[in-house]
Amino acid sequence: MNAPSGRADLLKQRICTAASKLFIRRGFGATSMQDIADALRISRPKLYYYFRDKAVILETLVSNVPVEAHRRAQAVLSAEGLDAPQKLRQLILQHADLILARPLEFRLLDMSLEHLPRGMKARAQKAKRGLLEAFTQVIREGIEAEKFRPVDARVAAFAMIGMCNWTAAWYRREGRLRAEEICKVLADLGISAVEKGKGAARTNGMHHSLKMLREGIAGLEAAIG
Amino acid sequence: MNAPSGRADLLKQRICTAASKLFIRRGFGATSMQDIADALRISRPKLYYYFRDKAVILETLVSNVPVEAHRRAQAVLSAEGLDAPQKLRQLILQHADLILARPLEFRLLDMSLEHLPRGMKARAQKAKRGLLEAFTQVIREGIEAEKFRPVDARVAAFAMIGMCNWTAAWYRREGRLRAEEICKVLADLGISAVEKGKGAARTNGMHHSLKMLREGIAGLEAAIG
Repeated sequence: MNAPSGRADLLKQRICTAASKLFIRRGFGATSMQDIADALRISRPKLYYYFRDKAVILETLVSNVPVEAHRRAQAVLSAEGLDAPQKLRQLILQHADLILARPLEFRLLDMSLEHLPRGMKARAQKAKRGLLEAFTQVIREGIEAEKFRPVDARVAAFAMIGMCNWTAAWYRREGRLRAEEICKVLADLGISAVEKGKGAARTNGMHHSLKMLREGIAGLEAAIG
Repeated sequence: MNAPSGRADLLKQRICTAASKLFIRRGFGATSMQDIADALRISRPKLYYYFRDKAVILETLVSNVPVEAHRRAQAVLSAEGLDAPQKLRQLILQHADLILARPLEFRLLDMSLEHLPRGMKARAQKAKRGLLEAFTQVIREGIEAEKFRPVDARVAAFAMIGMCNWTAAWYRREGRLRAEEICKVLADLGISAVEKGKGAARTNGMHHSLKMLREGIAGLEAAIG
């Protein structure tokens, strides 16, 4: 931390954190470079030394969230040896983990898409679409493999992404549960929401009834030892 | 619509819609009364005749959403003759319906809580807590009645509210599904996420295995006729 580069990185990070709070509280448009300097009790020239203008701070803050979300989702799609429920679990776990690690940046991205330079906005939107496609694809795969119920895959994908994204609005670091525990609860809820279960018995007739008999027997055998 | 009051209401509504778009795009702080007048091609005095300042427009726009959400949730809690799954279904249906009917107002509320007058901000936050409590209480009720799996009721409540709220970020009126259809899909996903089903077999041992055997037999009997 004594090396100049380390100190510079630390200050850049402090600038980004202070700016993100101001952008969220006042809005990007109503926040000036002077406001950011004041919040950190540093001079304006010092602030300008690190960031040319507030748009660059915004870019630095939000650029990685959607791109990172998309990158992680792509890795799951191309993972070998995972079935659809395993893939969906991984998608939810890692997306919730990303949002919980960077809730301010995520809220800011959601609020300030309009303020991003055109190229960056396009990249963010492309990454968001890619994330949605990954969730949709895995849910469709699960339906085709008869592991998931025949739900509307697109709406289900939005629902899963939504419950992860919404953590940015309520999660508190000092709260009752650790981020990791929240991720697990959300993954469990997401999988259960689409997995074939009791509800399917009503529609699947004899095939499913036989499956329940087999599972019931297996359960008893396991319990007996 | 020819009565003066009707025409005034219509213009007030047009002002609110135009202002909500500007507030979302530019931020509340960076939007002026002049901007709103320009967007509607009306004079500034005319705008001021209807709204004293932009804070009043913001109030008019967002005040009803959380209060209405809380009011609807309270009605479900006090409804008689509904079990926990029926209550949860109703909570999700009506909350998604509210957000889908007023996505702009909801996004705006989420973005601009800081800009609301103190009293109104307190009312909005109280209503939000009330909504969360209602979801949490119904999920706890379902767990106690053994209709729901033993999930973390608080996180599950946030997950359900989050998937409803997130529709404000993706729903398009001209999209593939009607709002009503989206509500149904979300309610179905939410109920399935917590309902006792196949997943419970792993933890519930012999009792659940016997239940599966009974249900399997009942299913076969029904299929035979």
